[in-house]
Amino acid sequence: MGCFQVRTDLALEARESITEADSTLRGVKLEEEYDEEEDIRVTTVEITTKNGAKAMGKPMGTYITIEAPGMLEPDEGYHREISEVIAKQLVKIIPGIKEEQEILVVGLGNREVTADALGPHVVDNLYITRHIVKEFGKAAYNKEKINIISSIEPGVMGKTGMEAAEIIRGVVEQTTPRVMIVIDALAARSTKRLNRTIQITDTGIHPGSGVGNNRNALTEESMGIPVIAIGVPTVVDAGTIVVDALEKMVHDEGETERHRYVDDCRNALTELHNMYVASKDIDAVIKRVSYTVSEGINIALELA
Amino acid sequence: MGCFQVRTDLALEARESITEADSTLRGVKLEEEYDEEEDIRVTTVEITTKNGAKAMGKPMGTYITIEAPGMLEPDEGYHREISEVIAKQLVKIIPGIKEEQEILVVGLGNREVTADALGPHVVDNLYITRHIVKEFGKAAYNKEKINIISSIEPGVMGKTGMEAAEIIRGVVEQTTPRVMIVIDALAARSTKRLNRTIQITDTGIHPGSGVGNNRNALTEESMGIPVIAIGVPTVVDAGTIVVDALEKMVHDEGETERHRYVDDCRNALTELHNMYVASKDIDAVIKRVSYTVSEGINIALELA
Amino acid sequence: MGCFQVRTDLALEARESITEADSTLRGVKLEEEYDEEEDIRVTTVEITTKNGAKAMGKPMGTYITIEAPGMLEPDEGYHREISEVIAKQLVKIIPGIKEEQEILVVGLGNREVTADALGPHVVDNLYITRHIVKEFGKAAYNKEKINIISSIEPGVMGKTGMEAAEIIRGVVEQTTPRVMIVIDALAARSTKRLNRTIQITDTGIHPGSGVGNNRNALTEESMGIPVIAIGVPTVVDAGTIVVDALEKMVHDEGETERHRYVDDCRNALTELHNMYVASKDIDAVIKRVSYTVSEGINIALELA
Amino acid sequence: MGCFQVRTDLALEARESITEADSTLRGVKLEEEYDEEEDIRVTTVEITTKNGAKAMGKPMGTYITIEAPGMLEPDEGYHREISEVIAKQLVKIIPGIKEEQEILVVGLGNREVTADALGPHVVDNLYITRHIVKEFGKAAYNKEKINIISSIEPGVMGKTGMEAAEIIRGVVEQTTPRVMIVIDALAARSTKRLNRTIQITDTGIHPGSGVGNNRNALTEESMGIPVIAIGVPTVVDAGTIVVDALEKMVHDEGETERHRYVDDCRNALTELHNMYVASKDIDAVIKRVSYTVSEGINIALELA
Repeated sequence: MGCFQVRTDLALEARESITEADSTLRGVKLEEEYDEEEDIRVTTVEITTKNGAKAMGKPMGTYITIEAPGMLEPDEGYHREISEVIAKQLVKIIPGIKEEQEILVVGLGNREVTADALGPHVVDNLYITRHIVKEFGKAAYNKEKINIISSIEPGVMGKTGMEAAEIIRGVVEQTTPRVMIVIDALAARSTKRLNRTIQITDTGIHPGSGVGNNRNALTEESMGIPVIAIGVPTVVDAGTIVVDALEKMVHDEGETERHRYVDDCRNALTELHNMYVASKDIDAVIKRVSYTVSEGINIALELA
Repeated sequence: MGCFQVRTDLALEARESITEADSTLRGVKLEEEYDEEEDIRVTTVEITTKNGAKAMGKPMGTYITIEAPGMLEPDEGYHREISEVIAKQLVKIIPGIKEEQEILVVGLGNREVTADALGPHVVDNLYITRHIVKEFGKAAYNKEKINIISSIEPGVMGKTGMEAAEIIRGVVEQTTPRVMIVIDALAARSTKRLNRTIQITDTGIHPGSGVGNNRNALTEESMGIPVIAIGVPTVVDAGTIVVDALEKMVHDEGETERHRYVDDCRNALTELHNMYVASKDIDAVIKRVSYTVSEGINIALELA
Repeated sequence: MGCFQVRTDLALEARESITEADSTLRGVKLEEEYDEEEDIRVTTVEITTKNGAKAMGKPMGTYITIEAPGMLEPDEGYHREISEVIAKQLVKIIPGIKEEQEILVVGLGNREVTADALGPHVVDNLYITRHIVKEFGKAAYNKEKINIISSIEPGVMGKTGMEAAEIIRGVVEQTTPRVMIVIDALAARSTKRLNRTIQITDTGIHPGSGVGNNRNALTEESMGIPVIAIGVPTVVDAGTIVVDALEKMVHDEGETERHRYVDDCRNALTELHNMYVASKDIDAVIKRVSYTVSEGINIALELA
Repeated sequence: MGCFQVRTDLALEARESITEADSTLRGVKLEEEYDEEEDIRVTTVEITTKNGAKAMGKPMGTYITIEAPGMLEPDEGYHREISEVIAKQLVKIIPGIKEEQEILVVGLGNREVTADALGPHVVDNLYITRHIVKEFGKAAYNKEKINIISSIEPGVMGKTGMEAAEIIRGVVEQTTPRVMIVIDALAARSTKRLNRTIQITDTGIHPGSGVGNNRNALTEESMGIPVIAIGVPTVVDAGTIVVDALEKMVHDEGETERHRYVDDCRNALTELHNMYVASKDIDAVIKRVSYTVSEGINIALELA
C-alpha cells in the first residue's frame, strides 16, 4: 500500500522493504560481515536473476554496503580505518585491478549544493597520474606498477547545457580508459542511513540518482567499459519522510481513513516536489566523508 | 493540539496560526499593499502590546513581509523591481536614514551550507565606503551625502569557537556604527513560503533563527544600537513538515487515535532532529536572491 | 637583441615590437577606431600572409583588441558600455551568427588561481539554453530565434590528468556544436596592458597561452569547427619584466657590457622560471572583468 | 646604494643584507640547527638592542626561520615532519603553553587571492575547542589538559570597510584570550625563499606585511596580549625583483651610469606599483602548506 513507489538508491533499503515471502525468492543473495571492534558492517547483496531484479527494483549485479556509524563523528582525522574497508571492497569489485589499469574517476554532482558536492570533493583529493605518465613515462614513479588515473567533474546540466553522460562519453572516447569509477551523493529512504553508509556497485548509475537533476545512465552498456559506482546517501527525499510518517498511522483503518490518507499523501508529495532533507552539519560531513572515500580509492589504486 | 510548539521565523505565519478570536485582540495591527502588475504583496504586522507579543510568540515591533513569487523565476538579471521594494521598506524602518548614517551590515550564516549562505553572499555584493571615507574623506565621493558602510561575516561557532554575537559586539564597540542591519536565512513553516518571501523587522535576530547553530540575540538591547533584520526563508524544519502532515489526519478522533498520533509525532521529531528541508535548486536561488537583497540595501543607502 | 624571444599573447604588442621597416611589409593590416567619449579603442590587426605571420610570430587571421582603461575602475556595476563593444565585435567575427547557431563556450584556466580564473568565471555567468531547447523545444523561449548555448570548464591537467583539448574534443564530438568560443586569461608583455585589454581572434588558442600549464591547441584545425578566442591579459611573465628593465640599461655599450647583460638576463630567467606578475587587487578585477565579458557574449548571442 | 629601501618580511633576509661590519654589532644574535636527514634548517635571530633593531630594520624580539625545501614537493600527504618542527618551535615561543591556555588564532589575508589565502586556509583546518568547553565544560574531552582555542578570519578592508586590527581588538576584548597567534602570507625579497620558509616571531605583525592592503599593527602593544606571528613567504614584490636585477649591472660605473640606473629603477617601481610575483602552482602550494602549518599548530596545542 502507499500512494507512490518509494524511491531509494540503496539496495540494502530495497532489500528490507521486501517481505519474507519475496526474500526467499531465488535471485537475491545476501551476505554479511561485521567488524565488532570498529563497528563496521559490510553487507553484500547479489541480484542474479531478472526476478530478483524485479523484486528489488534494481538492476542485476553486486551491491556492497558499508555501514560505519563512526563516520558521523569527527575523529582527529578522516577515519582511515573506513578508507581501508572501502579499498578492500574496491579491489574485489574493480575488474583487472591486479594488473596495471587505466581508470577514469568521475565526480558527479553540484559543487555549489553542499549535500550534492560529494563527487566533486572526492576527485579534488585523488592522486592523479595520467598526465605525468604520458609526459615522463612510468619511470617518473619509482614503483613496479603504476595505475594511470584521470578524473573529470562534468558539472550540472543547468550550467553546461549538457547531460553528464554526454560529456563523460566524449572523454571516454578520447582517452580510452579501461574502467570508470563514478562517485555520487545518493538519496536514502531513512535518515538513519545518512552520511554513515557507503554503497559500492558494479551496476553504475541510473537516471534519477543523487540529489541533482535527472542524468542519463552511466553504465557498462552506455559507456562501453565497466562502471563502478560509489555512493553515499546524504539526503532523503522530503516526500518520502512524510509518506512514511503517514503510513505508520494507517493500519487496519476503514475505507474513509484509507481514502483520506491517500489524498493527504498525494498533497504532501505535490507540495514537497523537488525538496530534500539534509542534516544541518552537512558541510562538515561532506568535507570529512569525501576525504575518507578519496583515500579509500587512493589506497585501492596503490597511490596512498 | 500538537506534540510541539511549531516554530517559524515568519511573523506572517505566526499571524495565520492565530484563530479569529485572538486576531481581534488588541496589540496586533495588520496592513497590506498589493502591486498587481509586479505581483508583489507587502504585509506589515505591528505588535504593539505584550499581549500581542504573547499571542504571536514574537517580540513587540514591526514586521514587514514582502511576498514576491517572481523571485522564484530567474529573469535575465536579478529582479531589480523587487530590490526597489526592499529599498523602499528599508528607508521606512532604518532610523535616521534621512541624514548621513554609519551602518554595519552583518551577514549571518554558514557560507559552506548553501541554504544558510544568504548572509555571507549578501555582504559580498554590498557597496562598502567606510575605509574610503576614513582614508580620503567624503571628498572621495562626489555626493552631497554619503553613508558610511562597513560589513562583517562572523562565521559559524563550529569554526570560530565564538558566538556571532560576541564577535559583532566587539566590532560595534571598536567601530561605533549607529545602526546595524543583519541578514540571515530563515526557517519557514510551509514550503510555500520558501525563497519568495522577504521579512524586514526592527526587532533584530533571536536565538534559534536561521539554519545554523543557536546564536545569541542580536537586538537593540544586546547591541546598544538599533538592529534591523532582513530574512529570507530558505528552509523548513524537517520535523515541522511531518507533524503538519500528521495533524491533517487527526481531527475529531478518539483517545487511542490521539495517543498514537502524539507518539508518532514525537518519534518523527526525534528522528528528524537537526534535519532541514530545502529545494534542489537552492544554489541558483541563493545566488539570485542574495543579489536582489544586496541591491535593495545599496539602493536604500543611495549607493546603487 | 635580448637573451630570449619575448613572449606575449597580444597581437597588438607583437605588432609594436616590429620596427618601421617590417611594419610596411605586406601581410599585416592595421585598422583603428576610437570612441573618445567612452575612451575605448578598437584595433584590428589582420595577418593575411605567411610572411606577415612570421614577422608577427602569430598565425594568420584576425586579431581585434579592445582597450578600455575604464575596466580598471569599479563603476556601480560592470561597465555595460564595454560589454556592448565586445558584443559588436563578436557579431562581426562569429561565423553564421546571423542565423540560429549552436555554440559551445569553453572556460579555460584554473578556478583556484585567481589570475587564471577568468574562463571559469565567465562561463558561470553565461545564459545556457541547450538543455532547455532539447527538453522543451524552442517554444520554451518566446523568441523568433534562439541560439543553442552550452558550456564546459575542462579544468587543469594537474587535476584531471588530461589535456583540456582532449576533453573539449570529446565534448565537441558528442554534442556537435557549430562554433566554439574559448575564454582564457592571457600573458601580456607590459603591465600597462593588464586587465584593461580584451583580445578577440578567430585563430583560437595555441599551446603556452594563459597562466596555466601548456595546453594543446584549440583551433579550427584541431577541433573541426571555427574557434573564436576571447582573452584578457591578467599577468605578465616575471622574466619578461626583468629583461625589459635590463634592456633599457643596455644601449650602445661595448662587448663586456653586452656579455654581462646576457648573463644577468639568463640568470634572471632561470630564477624567475614559472613565476608570474599580477596586480594585488586581481580578485576584484577578475570578478568585474569576467562579468563584463560574459555579458558581452550574452548580448552578442541575443540572450541578454 | 639603490633607489629605494628594499622591503622583506623575513628577518633572515634582513640579516643577510647586513655587511660583515654591522653583523658583528652587538644586539643581533644568530643561532642555527640543521637536520640533515630531513633537510630542515632552523635559524633563530634574536634582536636584543635598539641598535640591532635599527640595523635590521625590524623590531626587537625573536625570529625563528624554518627552511624546508621539502615543502615545495608534494608528498603523499602534507609533510608531517615539518609540522612537528613547527610545533616544537611554537612550544618554545608561546608564553605559558605548559599550562592550559586560551588562544585566539587569527587568519589574516584574502581568501579570494590565492597567494594571500594562507591565513584563512590555516584557520579552516584548526581544531577549535572554545565553544565546546563553554557549553559542556572540559569534561567533553577526556584529557587532563585542554587548551581553549578560538579563531577568526577578519577578511580584507576592501570588503569589510574596517582594519583587521579593529575587528581583532574587538574580539579580544569580548573573549579575553591570553595569547594570540596570527598567520599571514609574507613577501620575501628573493624567489628562492618562496613557499619553503616559515617564520615564527614573538613581535607580531606590522603594517605593510603580507600581500594585502596595509593593516594596522597586531602586536602585544596594540592588542594587550602576546602576539605570536607565523608567516610563509608566498610572493615577492615585483619592484624588488627588477631593482635587484638592475643593481647587479651597476657596480663601479661613473656618474652618468649611476643616474641612469636610478631613473630606470624609479620608473620600474612606478610601473610595478601594487604588483606581486608568485609561482604558477601557487594554488597547490597554498593548499599543502596551509595544512602543514595548521597541523603544526594543532600538535603544539596538543589537539592533534
